Amino acid sequence: MHIAAQHQPSQIQLNDQGNLKHFLTIEGLSKDTLHKILDTAQSFFDDNNNLITSPLLEGRTVMNLFFENSTRTRTTFEAAAKRLSANVLNIDIARSSTSKGETLRDTLWNLQAMAADIFVVRHSASGAAHFIAQTVCPEIAIINAGDGRHAHPTQAMLDMLTIQRESHKPFSDISVAIIGDIKHSRVARSDVAALQTLGCKDIRVIGPRTLLPVGFEEYAPDVQLFTNMDEGVKDCDVIIALRIQNERIDSPALSSQQEFYKLFGLDERRLALAKPDAIVMHPGPMNRGVEIASSIADGTQSVILKQVTNGIAVRMAVLALSMQGQLQAQGLIDALAI
Amino acid sequence: MHIAAQHQPSQIQLNDQGNLKHFLTIEGLSKDTLHKILDTAQSFFDDNNNLITSPLLEGRTVMNLFFENSTRTRTTFEAAAKRLSANVLNIDIARSSTSKGETLRDTLWNLQAMAADIFVVRHSASGAAHFIAQTVCPEIAIINAGDGRHAHPTQAMLDMLTIQRESHKPFSDISVAIIGDIKHSRVARSDVAALQTLGCKDIRVIGPRTLLPVGFEEYAPDVQLFTNMDEGVKDCDVIIALRIQNERIDSPALSSQQEFYKLFGLDERRLALAKPDAIVMHPGPMNRGVEIASSIADGTQSVILKQVTNGIAVRMAVLALSMQGQLQAQGLIDALAI
Amino acid sequence: MHIAAQHQPSQIQLNDQGNLKHFLTIEGLSKDTLHKILDTAQSFFDDNNNLITSPLLEGRTVMNLFFENSTRTRTTFEAAAKRLSANVLNIDIARSSTSKGETLRDTLWNLQAMAADIFVVRHSASGAAHFIAQTVCPEIAIINAGDGRHAHPTQAMLDMLTIQRESHKPFSDISVAIIGDIKHSRVARSDVAALQTLGCKDIRVIGPRTLLPVGFEEYAPDVQLFTNMDEGVKDCDVIIALRIQNERIDSPALSSQQEFYKLFGLDERRLALAKPDAIVMHPGPMNRGVEIASSIADGTQSVILKQVTNGIAVRMAVLALSMQGQLQAQGLIDALAI
Repeated sequence: MHIAAQHQPSQIQLNDQGNLKHFLTIEGLSKDTLHKILDTAQSFFDDNNNLITSPLLEGRTVMNLFFENSTRTRTTFEAAAKRLSANVLNIDIARSSTSKGETLRDTLWNLQAMAADIFVVRHSASGAAHFIAQTVCPEIAIINAGDGRHAHPTQAMLDMLTIQRESHKPFSDISVAIIGDIKHSRVARSDVAALQTLGCKDIRVIGPRTLLPVGFEEYAPDVQLFTNMDEGVKDCDVIIALRIQNERIDSPALSSQQEFYKLFGLDERRLALAKPDAIVMHPGPMNRGVEIASSIADGTQSVILKQVTNGIAVRMAVLALSMQGQLQAQGLIDALAI
Repeated sequence: MHIAAQHQPSQIQLNDQGNLKHFLTIEGLSKDTLHKILDTAQSFFDDNNNLITSPLLEGRTVMNLFFENSTRTRTTFEAAAKRLSANVLNIDIARSSTSKGETLRDTLWNLQAMAADIFVVRHSASGAAHFIAQTVCPEIAIINAGDGRHAHPTQAMLDMLTIQRESHKPFSDISVAIIGDIKHSRVARSDVAALQTLGCKDIRVIGPRTLLPVGFEEYAPDVQLFTNMDEGVKDCDVIIALRIQNERIDSPALSSQQEFYKLFGLDERRLALAKPDAIVMHPGPMNRGVEIASSIADGTQSVILKQVTNGIAVRMAVLALSMQGQLQAQGLIDALAI
Repeated sequence: MHIAAQHQPSQIQLNDQGNLKHFLTIEGLSKDTLHKILDTAQSFFDDNNNLITSPLLEGRTVMNLFFENSTRTRTTFEAAAKRLSANVLNIDIARSSTSKGETLRDTLWNLQAMAADIFVVRHSASGAAHFIAQTVCPEIAIINAGDGRHAHPTQAMLDMLTIQRESHKPFSDISVAIIGDIKHSRVARSDVAALQTLGCKDIRVIGPRTLLPVGFEEYAPDVQLFTNMDEGVKDCDVIIALRIQNERIDSPALSSQQEFYKLFGLDERRLALAKPDAIVMHPGPMNRGVEIASSIADGTQSVILKQVTNGIAVRMAVLALSMQGQLQAQGLIDALAI
């Protein structure tokens, strides 16, 4: 698939009224749009903080197109779409397309013609979802479920929802530290973009020099880089420990799990350096004893499992909002129902 | 599986009132029955030509039994059944049956006993769906989703619906040309049967001599055979380009893709020989540049993607009608609700 | 997974009001609880003995966690949950957990945090479902879909429902013979426990000495063991023929299929030794001509396919009851709605 980017993603993913019609990347979205997503996600919780079900996507067909396998992420989207009363079809996209000599474009057009309303796309190539939204199926709501090292925007939004629900402080007043393999993490990149848009002024990135991205300073000039973890977590409100991919261990970039834990593992001593009410986050799956001590993962400051639940709410929000934005773009409704 | 055919399929698939209770093959169905399917399919479009959802199969259980893999066809049936509000179960039929030494008959009886209402059956053996309907599970509505080289009746009906919706001419007044690998195509055989029943008087079949079926003249005496494409498409209203199976290329029957395209590929020059308002169809997946030029596939006369959408409507129709016919056969309803 | 059993299962699976909140094993459940399950299952049939659909699990999320493959059992739970209007997610649990270095506990907690309400668990290790209910996810309704050689409690309850619906005699008045590989059968063990609780006084176990469990006499002191089948089936009301696992054939325990059939196959002569109105059951998949003659399997006394349908009803019952018991345990409802 040739990945082009003729327009800015921010333009592509909004309709003429400025509402989401695809959800591709955090970058370029306004503070208002991010708050709209957070507010919509928040509206899917009842008074007991349990997720509700909603008829917002009743009669709509959501297709999961996972070009690269991710059982966990697919399951969260399937659960979210079903909570919105959608029909969900998991397409074996690897098998159904190129194996028969058909072009990917024709495969996608065929799926669209089966009366699909939303494609949830996961692809190893950066910009794949963007490419589909821009040049293949612009009238289908395209939701980016992770592409290459570039973007994982629903993960970023569930992190933001978790910070908002659990830290009880405005984004402008908090210090956020992101620890670990910043270089290869789609989460880190998306989180930084979301935090900056939401007005967070103190973003810190902590890791071994080999796992800090080259050129990050230019990309994110306001972000502080730390190679010393104790300094980095000092007085933080939010600590996000990233997953170390197993394939990075024992590479030149990372000598051993033990070595990483010694230098950058989140343990009780280091957590004590943060604010007393700091919250601890991790995108999962966790390597206990590598990125994080088990006592912290299961401790009172951990909101790691709340992130998972918030992930369902956020995915419900972007599915519902993008569908509404498509209907508005196509003149089928005047104003969003949510 | 031993495939018997003690009764005519046309008898098997109708209840005592003459309504469908299985959908196995086009052959033997009356013009009225085909029009009933087309009218029902048409009723699933709203005023904007979008597919509706319907409660017709609410509380019903549809099981997809794909003995041979076909992700695309399975997906269309799953989408159709869900639009009718059915519960859909995709059964891993290859794994669940013979692997444990159980007979296929016992496996099917077990699935029936799980309170299934409809089986959608895809099998490589001609007559498999017919056999199941006749001797294994006559009280389950059996829908043939393609069997061997014999029949692909929902494909034929979606082609008919597409001709009806897009050519805007009565079947008795149109000329239809079917091009390519007629010999191995279940689509060709089913299309010819449907067109003849619907009163089409000018059916032409075009292809290299090696890919024309032996004995086709007797089987379909009114069909004209052409080995020269220019002559075959002249003044046609409908052109159906069939898929060339990759495994036929470089066989004695077919020297090369280039050679096929040169002799039988649908390009702009040849399309110009047909009527100016001729429509172009293809069952997919397409080999662009083999059966059809890309400019034609994407051109204004192509209705190839409309075929896909019509395929959902037609599958909804045969699912709903066969269910109704079963209920009537079992004395549970007096008259069809549709 | 380390399997602990600090409390009795009977305590674990009941809430403070004595209602089911998990369904793990028959052992330890009261006669009243078993009758509650049977009555609830019975309530899911309409006047024509067809299964109804019900909104009892509307808005609830059921996750199928099959650590060991069993297409048939998974399908029955999926069908049952969908008949109760639940959202059903089939989790590829083998792929999603340990492959990424995550602990099973974390995987399960993640699935719980996706707003799951019920886990249906199948595992090759005895006590796995119990372990999850007790120490990992006590607030999720855990349904045991078979674990190791230990328990297969929904199979036992569908057997009880079948006896109740088809033999038309009270449990206290019937003689039940279970034939075959008692030693390796989770069905046999669960059936005996259920029959004893329901007051059955004449339970017989029939098989070759090598396939009778060591210590069964202590475990089930009231059960009679027979190595002569003619004696064992004499005047029985219910005959349950167990499946012989193919891997046992040609082992020291079992010389050949022919030999087994000769000594323990249920044929017409032996069935004639039982009561004239005796019913014949088999948990499936059947090896015709090994455990049972085809003429018996398909004969008038066979209720084998009714077992399958009753299996849907029983699974609906334990899903619905366990969900209600969890809601009651968590103070969200005062009394069961069923």
